[in-house]
Amino acid sequence: MEKVKELYEGKAKKVYTTDDPELYIVSYKDDATAFDGQKKGTIADKGIVNNTMSNIIFALIEEAGVPTHFVKQLSDRETLVKAVTIFPLEVIIRNVAAGHFSSRYGVDEGTPLARPALEFSYKRDDLGDPLMNDDHVLALGLATEAELATVRKYAHKVNEVMGAFFLDKGLKLIDFKIEFGKLSDGTIILADEVSPDTCRLWDVETNEKMDKDRFRRDLGKVEETYQEVLNRVKK
Amino acid sequence: MEKVKELYEGKAKKVYTTDDPELYIVSYKDDATAFDGQKKGTIADKGIVNNTMSNIIFALIEEAGVPTHFVKQLSDRETLVKAVTIFPLEVIIRNVAAGHFSSRYGVDEGTPLARPALEFSYKRDDLGDPLMNDDHVLALGLATEAELATVRKYAHKVNEVMGAFFLDKGLKLIDFKIEFGKLSDGTIILADEVSPDTCRLWDVETNEKMDKDRFRRDLGKVEETYQEVLNRVKK
Repeated sequence: MEKVKELYEGKAKKVYTTDDPELYIVSYKDDATAFDGQKKGTIADKGIVNNTMSNIIFALIEEAGVPTHFVKQLSDRETLVKAVTIFPLEVIIRNVAAGHFSSRYGVDEGTPLARPALEFSYKRDDLGDPLMNDDHVLALGLATEAELATVRKYAHKVNEVMGAFFLDKGLKLIDFKIEFGKLSDGTIILADEVSPDTCRLWDVETNEKMDKDRFRRDLGKVEETYQEVLNRVKK
Repeated sequence: MEKVKELYEGKAKKVYTTDDPELYIVSYKDDATAFDGQKKGTIADKGIVNNTMSNIIFALIEEAGVPTHFVKQLSDRETLVKAVTIFPLEVIIRNVAAGHFSSRYGVDEGTPLARPALEFSYKRDDLGDPLMNDDHVLALGLATEAELATVRKYAHKVNEVMGAFFLDKGLKLIDFKIEFGKLSDGTIILADEVSPDTCRLWDVETNEKMDKDRFRRDLGKVEETYQEVLNRVKK
């Protein structure tokens, strides 16, 4: 399967059409951004880590009954995926307070939440990806009630599967962001990626941050950490 | 019934204890604030308008089956109310895009929403009263699932009752903010106030803003508009 035309370039990936209208090729870049694109940089070989790691985890998630866009890894940085129309929503699940949750609600980072909290952000860079609740999603017609129910059910399943998987690798899943899309027949599937760019992962023993916060917060050992996470995931 | 001790001074009201631990006296002020207290001013006789108007509407809401804190109007500015512990949540219902909804999601003011959208803000001035969804409320233990269900049911009922009432007075109910509290036995009731401070009301014919946006946005005729709304409500 060959790339035909660049369809879209995002902050961390490019998406290409193929000869098959139902299939795209995703190509992972090393570019890293934070704070709505105000901070920019490069993390060497991040594209390789995120591509490999996403595919390993997407396979696990698929086995657990949540359909994903993953079809086949083509190379270190490229993967064949199902063509989807992405919901304009970031789906975030939080198990432990961190990041925006902590600053927004005045809760110390590291505070465990009584139960996993799911939230939606409207994918609108020009508006700073604002938080929205189910009523907002419905009022703006971004998804139907039935679609939201499916997304919610799948997201919690992903949290369960990933939480157990990472724990086995010595990593606590603090929170993560995923995206869902629809196939041409309306089937909802998990798309985008699952990586240290999109998950907060803390070492079980040391609570060391093993994710993109090392880049966001200038904590050092950025490349090494991405490689370490990949090594653990591959074990 | 006499005021015993000032319990709390808010931006627009003072609350006093009485000899009866189950009863408070609320006293409405003319002070007006906007933009998280950054803009401050006075609207002459606003306290009288808001007290009178709240009591008229609370009586209607009570008749419609939603319990409220209203007991008896004591004077132009003072009302005897049931003592409640307020949930630290602003409950907002939006029928038409305006204010923060419009700026947050990039939707033109005046755009009707497909259905009323309910949202919660965490009552934390120091955090800018951030938006939160049900999962956040539950994760932080601010209310239980059963309490949220009651609050949601009551809020939509309030929207129905007030929407029809204001329409009859030539006013469109664009959005509003209410607050709920709990009696000592756990009963959830509507508290706080319902006034041009807390409702966006647009004239049905002219779309003229008949609410606190006249103060927020320096539109002039602030006092006259509060009086006009009260006159319509009393008719």
